[in-house]
Amino acid sequence: MQAGTYFFVTSHSTDIMSFPGGSSDDPQSEIMAATYTALCEHGYAALSMAKIANELPMSKSSLYYHYDDKDALLSAFLGYVIEEFAADVSVVDEQDAEAQLRAFFDRVLPRELDESEHEFHVVLLELRAQAPHHESFREQFDRIDTLLRETIAGYIETGIEQETFRAVDSNESARLLVALIRGGRVDRVSRSDRSLGALRDALDAYLDSQLLA
Amino acid sequence: MQAGTYFFVTSHSTDIMSFPGGSSDDPQSEIMAATYTALCEHGYAALSMAKIANELPMSKSSLYYHYDDKDALLSAFLGYVIEEFAADVSVVDEQDAEAQLRAFFDRVLPRELDESEHEFHVVLLELRAQAPHHESFREQFDRIDTLLRETIAGYIETGIEQETFRAVDSNESARLLVALIRGGRVDRVSRSDRSLGALRDALDAYLDSQLLA
Repeated sequence: MQAGTYFFVTSHSTDIMSFPGGSSDDPQSEIMAATYTALCEHGYAALSMAKIANELPMSKSSLYYHYDDKDALLSAFLGYVIEEFAADVSVVDEQDAEAQLRAFFDRVLPRELDESEHEFHVVLLELRAQAPHHESFREQFDRIDTLLRETIAGYIETGIEQETFRAVDSNESARLLVALIRGGRVDRVSRSDRSLGALRDALDAYLDSQLLA
Repeated sequence: MQAGTYFFVTSHSTDIMSFPGGSSDDPQSEIMAATYTALCEHGYAALSMAKIANELPMSKSSLYYHYDDKDALLSAFLGYVIEEFAADVSVVDEQDAEAQLRAFFDRVLPRELDESEHEFHVVLLELRAQAPHHESFREQFDRIDTLLRETIAGYIETGIEQETFRAVDSNESARLLVALIRGGRVDRVSRSDRSLGALRDALDAYLDSQLLA
Protein backbone atom coordinates (compact mmCIF):
# COMPACT_ATOMS: atom_id res chain seq x y z
CA MET A 1 0.00 0.00 0.00
CA GLN A 2 1.36 3.40 -0.94
CA ALA A 3 1.90 5.94 1.80
CA GLY A 4 -0.93 8.42 2.00
CA THR A 5 -3.48 6.49 -0.02
CA TYR A 6 -5.46 5.57 3.05
CA PHE A 7 -6.15 9.13 4.17
CA PHE A 8 -9.75 10.20 4.15
CA VAL A 9 -9.02 13.85 3.52
CA THR A 10 -5.96 15.42 1.91
CA SER A 11 -5.66 18.41 4.21
CA HIS A 12 -6.42 19.17 7.84
CA SER A 13 -10.07 18.35 8.48
CA THR A 14 -12.31 21.00 9.96
CA ASP A 15 -15.11 18.55 10.69
CA ILE A 16 -14.76 17.49 14.31
CA MET A 17 -17.39 14.78 13.85
CA SER A 18 -15.15 12.70 11.57
CA PHE A 19 -11.77 11.13 12.04
CA PRO A 20 -9.22 13.93 11.56
CA GLY A 21 -7.02 13.61 8.50
CA GLY A 22 -3.37 14.59 8.41
CA SER A 23 -0.34 15.10 6.25
CA SER A 24 1.28 11.99 4.80
CA ASP A 25 4.64 13.62 5.62
CA ASP A 26 3.95 13.17 9.32
CA PRO A 27 4.61 9.60 10.62
CA GLN A 28 2.37 10.09 13.66
CA SER A 29 -0.62 11.12 11.51
CA GLU A 30 0.09 8.13 9.25
CA ILE A 31 0.05 5.74 12.21
CA MET A 32 -3.13 7.32 13.59
CA ALA A 33 -4.93 7.03 10.24
CA ALA A 34 -3.80 3.38 9.95
CA THR A 35 -5.04 2.71 13.50
CA TYR A 36 -8.41 4.21 12.64
CA THR A 37 -8.71 2.14 9.45
CA ALA A 38 -7.81 -1.05 11.34
CA LEU A 39 -10.24 -0.21 14.19
CA CYS A 40 -13.09 0.31 11.72
CA GLU A 41 -12.31 -2.97 9.99
CA HIS A 42 -11.53 -5.27 12.93
CA GLY A 43 -12.91 -3.64 16.10
CA TYR A 44 -11.02 -3.33 19.39
CA ALA A 45 -10.91 -6.99 20.42
CA ALA A 46 -9.57 -8.32 17.11
CA LEU A 47 -7.15 -5.41 16.62
CA SER A 48 -3.42 -6.17 16.74
CA MET A 49 -0.18 -4.30 16.10
CA ALA A 50 0.26 -6.52 13.01
CA LYS A 51 -3.11 -5.46 11.59
CA ILE A 52 -2.27 -1.79 12.13
CA ALA A 53 1.17 -2.28 10.52
CA ASN A 54 -0.62 -3.88 7.52
CA GLU A 55 -2.19 -0.48 6.85
CA LEU A 56 1.21 1.25 6.92
CA PRO A 57 4.38 1.31 4.81
CA MET A 58 6.27 0.04 7.87
CA SER A 59 6.87 -3.31 9.58
CA LYS A 60 5.30 -4.47 12.84
CA SER A 61 8.71 -4.12 14.55
CA SER A 62 8.97 -0.51 13.32
CA LEU A 63 5.53 0.14 14.80
CA TYR A 64 6.73 -1.31 18.14
CA TYR A 65 9.60 1.20 17.99
CA HIS A 66 6.96 3.96 18.27
CA TYR A 67 4.49 2.28 20.68
CA ASP A 68 4.98 -0.42 23.32
CA ASP A 69 1.70 -2.22 22.65
CA LYS A 70 -1.81 -1.94 21.24
CA ASP A 71 -3.20 -0.16 24.28
CA ALA A 72 -0.39 2.43 24.37
CA LEU A 73 -1.08 3.08 20.68
CA LEU A 74 -4.84 3.37 21.24
CA SER A 75 -4.31 5.75 24.16
CA ALA A 76 -2.16 7.89 21.83
CA PHE A 77 -4.92 7.58 19.21
CA LEU A 78 -7.47 9.02 21.65
CA GLY A 79 -4.99 11.78 22.53
CA TYR A 80 -4.59 12.58 18.83
CA VAL A 81 -8.35 12.76 18.30
CA ILE A 82 -8.64 15.13 21.30
CA GLU A 83 -5.84 17.41 20.04
CA GLU A 84 -7.59 17.75 16.68
CA PHE A 85 -10.91 18.27 18.42
CA ALA A 86 -9.41 20.99 20.66
CA ALA A 87 -7.81 22.73 17.66
CA ASP A 88 -11.13 22.72 15.79
CA VAL A 89 -13.23 23.81 18.76
CA SER A 90 -10.96 26.83 19.28
CA VAL A 91 -11.72 28.10 15.75
CA VAL A 92 -14.85 30.19 16.30
CA ASP A 93 -15.95 32.88 13.86
CA GLU A 94 -19.12 33.99 15.60
CA GLN A 95 -19.01 37.23 17.55
CA ASP A 96 -21.80 36.76 20.04
CA ALA A 97 -21.94 34.05 22.68
CA GLU A 98 -25.39 32.73 21.80
CA ALA A 99 -24.40 32.15 18.15
CA GLN A 100 -21.11 30.58 19.31
CA LEU A 101 -22.91 28.18 21.62
CA ARG A 102 -25.49 27.20 18.99
CA ALA A 103 -22.73 26.69 16.39
CA PHE A 104 -20.86 24.55 18.92
CA PHE A 105 -23.88 22.27 19.41
CA ASP A 106 -24.34 22.06 15.63
CA ARG A 107 -20.80 20.68 15.46
CA VAL A 108 -20.68 18.29 18.42
CA LEU A 109 -24.33 17.17 18.32
CA PRO A 110 -25.62 17.61 14.74
CA ARG A 111 -29.14 16.52 13.94
CA GLU A 112 -27.92 13.98 11.37
CA LEU A 113 -24.65 12.08 10.75
CA ASP A 114 -23.28 10.86 7.43
CA GLU A 115 -21.82 7.34 7.19
CA SER A 116 -18.19 8.32 7.87
CA GLU A 117 -19.25 10.34 10.92
CA HIS A 118 -21.36 7.43 12.15
CA GLU A 119 -18.39 5.07 11.76
CA PHE A 120 -16.16 7.44 13.75
CA HIS A 121 -18.69 7.51 16.61
CA VAL A 122 -18.95 3.72 16.60
CA VAL A 123 -15.17 3.48 17.04
CA LEU A 124 -15.14 6.07 19.83
CA LEU A 125 -17.95 4.24 21.67
CA GLU A 126 -16.08 0.96 21.45
CA LEU A 127 -12.96 2.55 22.94
CA ARG A 128 -15.09 4.21 25.63
CA ALA A 129 -16.50 0.80 26.58
CA GLN A 130 -12.88 -0.35 27.11
CA ALA A 131 -12.11 2.61 29.40
CA PRO A 132 -13.17 0.79 32.61
CA HIS A 133 -10.33 -1.66 31.94
CA HIS A 134 -7.63 0.88 30.95
CA GLU A 135 -6.61 3.82 33.13
CA SER A 136 -4.83 5.53 30.21
CA PHE A 137 -8.10 5.50 28.20
CA ARG A 138 -9.99 6.99 31.15
CA GLU A 139 -7.42 9.78 31.38
CA GLN A 140 -8.01 10.66 27.74
CA PHE A 141 -11.80 10.65 28.18
CA ASP A 142 -11.31 12.88 31.25
CA ARG A 143 -9.54 15.35 28.93
CA ILE A 144 -12.44 15.30 26.45
CA ASP A 145 -14.94 15.95 29.27
CA THR A 146 -12.86 18.81 30.67
CA LEU A 147 -12.41 20.34 27.22
CA LEU A 148 -16.15 20.20 26.49
CA ARG A 149 -17.08 21.57 29.92
CA GLU A 150 -14.57 24.44 29.84
CA THR A 151 -15.51 25.38 26.28
CA ILE A 152 -19.24 25.51 27.08
CA ALA A 153 -18.67 27.31 30.41
CA GLY A 154 -16.54 29.86 28.53
CA TYR A 155 -19.34 30.57 26.04
CA ILE A 156 -21.85 30.93 28.87
CA GLU A 157 -19.58 33.32 30.81
CA THR A 158 -19.08 35.41 27.66
CA GLY A 159 -22.86 35.49 27.16
CA ILE A 160 -23.38 36.64 30.75
CA GLU A 161 -20.81 39.43 30.20
CA GLN A 162 -22.55 40.39 26.94
CA GLU A 163 -25.83 40.41 28.91
CA THR A 164 -27.52 38.11 26.39
CA PHE A 165 -27.45 35.22 28.93
CA ARG A 166 -28.90 35.17 32.42
CA ALA A 167 -26.49 35.05 35.37
CA VAL A 168 -26.61 31.25 35.71
CA ASP A 169 -23.95 29.07 37.34
CA SER A 170 -21.83 28.50 34.21
CA ASN A 171 -20.06 25.39 35.53
CA GLU A 172 -23.31 23.77 36.61
CA SER A 173 -25.02 24.46 33.27
CA ALA A 174 -21.94 23.26 31.37
CA ARG A 175 -21.86 20.00 33.34
CA LEU A 176 -25.50 19.32 32.52
CA LEU A 177 -24.94 20.11 28.83
CA VAL A 178 -21.86 17.87 28.62
CA ALA A 179 -23.85 14.93 30.02
CA LEU A 180 -26.60 15.69 27.51
CA ILE A 181 -24.06 15.77 24.62
CA ARG A 182 -22.54 12.50 25.79
CA GLY A 183 -25.94 10.84 26.06
CA GLY A 184 -27.03 12.05 22.64
CA ARG A 185 -23.82 10.89 20.98
CA VAL A 186 -23.98 7.45 22.61
CA ASP A 187 -27.72 6.98 21.99
CA ARG A 188 -27.56 7.82 18.30
CA VAL A 189 -25.16 4.97 17.53
CA SER A 190 -26.68 2.40 19.88
CA ARG A 191 -30.36 2.66 18.95
CA SER A 192 -32.32 2.33 15.71
CA ASP A 193 -33.02 6.02 15.09
CA ARG A 194 -29.78 7.91 14.40
CA SER A 195 -31.48 11.30 14.10
CA LEU A 196 -31.14 13.69 17.04
CA GLY A 197 -33.78 16.14 15.81
CA ALA A 198 -36.06 15.75 18.83
CA LEU A 199 -33.18 16.02 21.31
CA ARG A 200 -31.83 19.11 19.54
CA ASP A 201 -35.31 20.68 19.71
CA ALA A 202 -35.34 19.98 23.46
CA LEU A 203 -31.85 21.45 23.78
CA ASP A 204 -32.86 24.60 21.88
CA ALA A 205 -35.88 24.97 24.18
CA TYR A 206 -33.53 24.63 27.18
CA LEU A 207 -31.24 27.37 25.84
CA ASP A 208 -34.23 29.65 25.17
CA SER A 209 -35.82 29.23 28.59
CA GLN A 210 -32.78 28.70 30.82
CA LEU A 211 -29.90 30.65 29.38
CA LEU A 212 -31.25 33.55 27.32
CA ALA A 213 -31.80 36.77 29.24
CA MET B 1 -20.68 -25.91 40.15
CA GLN B 2 -23.86 -26.37 42.15
CA ALA B 3 -27.04 -24.88 40.77
CA GLY B 4 -27.88 -21.61 42.43
CA THR B 5 -24.52 -20.92 44.05
CA TYR B 6 -23.69 -18.24 41.47
CA PHE B 7 -26.65 -16.02 42.22
CA PHE B 8 -25.83 -12.60 43.61
CA VAL B 9 -29.06 -12.26 45.53
CA THR B 10 -31.34 -14.96 46.80
CA SER B 11 -34.63 -13.26 46.00
CA HIS B 12 -35.93 -10.80 43.46
CA SER B 13 -33.72 -7.73 43.54
CA THR B 14 -35.29 -4.31 43.97
CA ASP B 15 -32.09 -2.47 43.11
CA ILE B 16 -32.32 -1.53 39.43
CA MET B 17 -28.68 -0.47 39.40
CA SER B 18 -27.42 -4.03 39.86
CA PHE B 19 -27.87 -7.17 37.85
CA PRO B 20 -31.30 -8.54 38.78
CA GLY B 21 -31.27 -11.80 40.67
CA GLY B 22 -33.79 -14.57 40.23
CA SER B 23 -35.07 -17.85 41.48
CA SER B 24 -32.84 -20.85 40.96
CA ASP B 25 -36.02 -22.80 40.09
CA ASP B 26 -36.37 -20.77 36.89
CA PRO B 27 -34.10 -21.99 34.02
CA GLN B 28 -34.26 -18.64 32.21
CA SER B 29 -33.09 -16.74 35.30
CA GLU B 30 -30.32 -19.32 35.75
CA ILE B 31 -29.10 -18.82 32.18
CA MET B 32 -29.27 -15.03 32.54
CA ALA B 33 -27.26 -15.09 35.76
CA ALA B 34 -24.69 -17.40 34.14
CA THR B 35 -24.48 -15.06 31.14
CA TYR B 36 -23.88 -12.12 33.43
CA THR B 37 -21.16 -13.95 35.36
CA ALA B 38 -19.43 -14.98 32.12
CA LEU B 39 -19.73 -11.43 30.68
CA CYS B 40 -18.12 -9.94 33.80
CA GLU B 41 -15.31 -12.47 33.65
CA HIS B 42 -14.55 -12.63 29.92
CA GLY B 43 -16.09 -9.54 28.27
CA TYR B 44 -18.16 -9.60 25.08
CA ALA B 45 -15.43 -10.48 22.57
CA ALA B 46 -14.08 -13.49 24.48
CA LEU B 47 -17.54 -14.72 25.51
CA SER B 48 -18.73 -18.03 24.09
CA MET B 49 -21.66 -20.38 24.57
CA ALA B 50 -19.19 -22.84 26.14
CA LYS B 51 -18.08 -20.28 28.73
CA ILE B 52 -21.68 -19.50 29.62
CA ALA B 53 -22.50 -23.24 29.86
CA ASN B 54 -19.50 -23.57 32.23
CA GLU B 55 -21.41 -21.40 34.70
CA LEU B 56 -24.50 -23.61 34.47
CA PRO B 57 -25.50 -27.13 35.46
CA MET B 58 -26.18 -27.85 31.76
CA SER B 59 -24.12 -28.73 28.69
CA LYS B 60 -23.27 -26.42 25.82
CA SER B 61 -25.67 -28.36 23.58
CA SER B 62 -28.48 -27.92 26.12
CA LEU B 63 -27.78 -24.18 26.06
CA TYR B 64 -28.04 -24.23 22.24
CA TYR B 65 -31.46 -25.81 22.67
CA HIS B 66 -32.59 -22.56 24.34
CA TYR B 67 -30.64 -20.03 22.20
CA ASP B 68 -29.33 -20.20 18.62
CA ASP B 69 -26.07 -18.39 19.31
CA LYS B 70 -24.23 -15.98 21.60
CA ASP B 71 -25.86 -12.89 20.13
CA ALA B 72 -29.39 -14.30 20.41
CA LEU B 73 -28.63 -15.12 24.05
CA LEU B 74 -27.21 -11.64 24.71
CA SER B 75 -30.22 -10.01 23.09
CA ALA B 76 -32.42 -12.07 25.43
CA PHE B 77 -30.13 -11.02 28.30
CA LEU B 78 -30.77 -7.34 27.50
CA GLY B 79 -34.50 -8.07 27.29
CA TYR B 80 -34.37 -9.75 30.70
CA VAL B 81 -32.56 -6.77 32.24
CA ILE B 82 -35.20 -4.43 30.77
CA GLU B 83 -38.11 -6.52 32.08
CA GLU B 84 -36.65 -6.42 35.59
CA PHE B 85 -35.96 -2.72 35.21
CA ALA B 86 -39.54 -2.07 34.05
CA ALA B 87 -40.95 -4.10 36.95
CA ASP B 88 -38.85 -2.16 39.46
CA VAL B 89 -39.56 1.26 37.96
CA SER B 90 -43.29 0.62 38.20
CA VAL B 91 -43.02 0.17 41.98
CA VAL B 92 -43.43 3.72 43.26
CA ASP B 93 -44.51 4.50 46.80
CA GLU B 94 -44.39 8.28 46.63
CA GLN B 95 -47.67 10.16 46.33
CA ASP B 96 -46.59 13.40 44.77
CA ALA B 97 -44.95 13.71 41.38
CA GLU B 98 -41.94 15.74 42.47
CA ALA B 99 -40.98 13.16 45.12
CA GLN B 100 -41.56 10.37 42.54
CA LEU B 101 -39.30 12.04 39.99
CA ARG B 102 -36.53 12.73 42.52
CA ALA B 103 -36.74 9.14 43.80
CA PHE B 104 -36.53 7.93 40.19
CA PHE B 105 -33.29 9.87 39.60
CA ASP B 106 -31.89 8.57 42.88
CA ARG B 107 -32.40 5.07 41.49
CA VAL B 108 -31.24 5.43 37.86
CA LEU B 109 -28.54 8.04 38.46
CA PRO B 110 -27.34 7.72 42.07
CA ARG B 111 -24.50 9.93 43.23
CA GLU B 112 -22.28 6.94 44.02
CA LEU B 113 -22.10 3.30 42.86
CA ASP B 114 -20.85 0.31 44.80
CA GLU B 115 -18.55 -2.23 43.12
CA SER B 116 -21.31 -4.61 41.95
CA GLU B 117 -23.31 -1.72 40.49
CA HIS B 118 -20.20 -0.43 38.75
CA GLU B 119 -19.54 -3.88 37.26
CA PHE B 120 -23.14 -4.07 35.96
CA HIS B 121 -22.75 -0.70 34.23
CA VAL B 122 -19.45 -1.78 32.66
CA VAL B 123 -21.20 -4.84 31.16
CA LEU B 124 -24.13 -2.74 29.87
CA LEU B 125 -21.75 -0.23 28.25
CA GLU B 126 -19.85 -3.02 26.53
CA LEU B 127 -23.09 -4.42 25.09
CA ARG B 128 -24.17 -0.91 24.06
CA ALA B 129 -20.90 -0.49 22.15
CA GLN B 130 -21.82 -3.67 20.23
CA ALA B 131 -25.27 -2.31 19.33
CA PRO B 132 -24.11 -0.65 16.07
CA HIS B 133 -23.26 -4.15 14.82
CA HIS B 134 -26.41 -5.96 16.05
CA GLU B 135 -29.93 -4.86 15.17
CA SER B 136 -31.43 -7.02 17.94
CA PHE B 137 -29.29 -5.19 20.53
CA ARG B 138 -30.40 -1.82 19.14
CA GLU B 139 -34.03 -2.90 19.46
CA GLN B 140 -33.50 -3.69 23.13
CA PHE B 141 -31.79 -0.35 23.77
CA ASP B 142 -34.71 1.34 21.97
CA ARG B 143 -37.00 -0.30 24.54
CA ILE B 144 -34.89 1.03 27.44
CA ASP B 145 -34.99 4.55 25.97
CA THR B 146 -38.75 4.40 25.45
CA LEU B 147 -39.31 3.05 28.96
CA LEU B 148 -37.21 5.79 30.54
CA ARG B 149 -38.82 8.52 28.43
CA GLU B 150 -42.40 7.39 29.06
CA THR B 151 -41.78 6.94 32.78
CA ILE B 152 -40.31 10.44 33.16
CA ALA B 153 -42.98 12.02 30.92
CA GLY B 154 -45.64 10.31 33.08
CA TYR B 155 -44.20 11.79 36.28
CA ILE B 156 -44.04 15.24 34.66
CA GLU B 157 -47.65 15.01 33.45
CA THR B 158 -48.79 13.95 36.92
CA GLY B 159 -46.91 16.92 38.39
CA ILE B 160 -48.58 19.30 35.94
CA GLU B 161 -51.99 17.87 36.94
CA GLN B 162 -51.09 18.24 40.61
CA GLU B 163 -50.04 21.84 39.83
CA THR B 164 -46.64 21.36 41.44
CA PHE B 165 -44.96 21.42 37.99
CA ARG B 166 -45.16 24.12 35.36
CA ALA B 167 -47.01 23.34 32.11
CA VAL B 168 -43.86 22.28 30.22
CA ASP B 169 -43.76 20.02 27.14
CA SER B 170 -43.48 16.72 29.02
CA ASN B 171 -42.08 14.74 26.06
CA GLU B 172 -39.45 17.36 25.31
CA SER B 173 -38.32 17.58 28.94
CA ALA B 174 -38.30 13.79 29.22
CA ARG B 175 -36.14 13.46 26.11
CA LEU B 176 -33.61 15.90 27.51
CA LEU B 177 -33.54 14.10 30.85
CA VAL B 178 -33.09 10.67 29.23
CA ALA B 179 -30.05 11.95 27.30
CA LEU B 180 -28.69 13.40 30.53
CA ILE B 181 -29.20 10.08 32.35
CA ARG B 182 -27.51 8.19 29.53
CA GLY B 183 -24.57 10.59 29.50
CA GLY B 184 -24.13 10.42 33.25
CA ARG B 185 -24.27 6.62 33.29
CA VAL B 186 -21.75 6.29 30.46
CA ASP B 187 -19.40 8.98 31.79
CA ARG B 188 -19.18 7.53 35.28
CA VAL B 189 -17.75 4.22 34.07
CA SER B 190 -15.49 5.64 31.34
CA ARG B 191 -13.71 8.40 33.23
CA SER B 192 -11.60 8.51 36.42
CA ASP B 193 -14.18 10.08 38.74
CA ARG B 194 -17.14 7.74 39.27
CA SER B 195 -19.07 10.19 41.45
CA LEU B 196 -22.01 12.00 39.88
CA GLY B 197 -22.46 14.48 42.71
CA ALA B 198 -21.85 17.57 40.57
CA LEU B 199 -24.13 16.34 37.78
CA ARG B 200 -26.88 15.49 40.27
CA ASP B 201 -26.56 19.01 41.75
CA ALA B 202 -26.97 20.42 38.22
CA LEU B 203 -29.97 18.14 37.65
CA ASP B 204 -31.60 19.24 40.92
CA ALA B 205 -31.07 22.88 39.91
CA TYR B 206 -32.73 22.11 36.55
CA LEU B 207 -35.76 20.56 38.29
CA ASP B 208 -36.05 23.55 40.64
CA SER B 209 -35.85 26.20 37.94
CA GLN B 210 -37.46 24.44 34.97
CA LEU B 211 -40.11 22.09 36.28
CA LEU B 212 -41.29 23.32 39.66
CA ALA B 213 -44.21 25.71 39.55
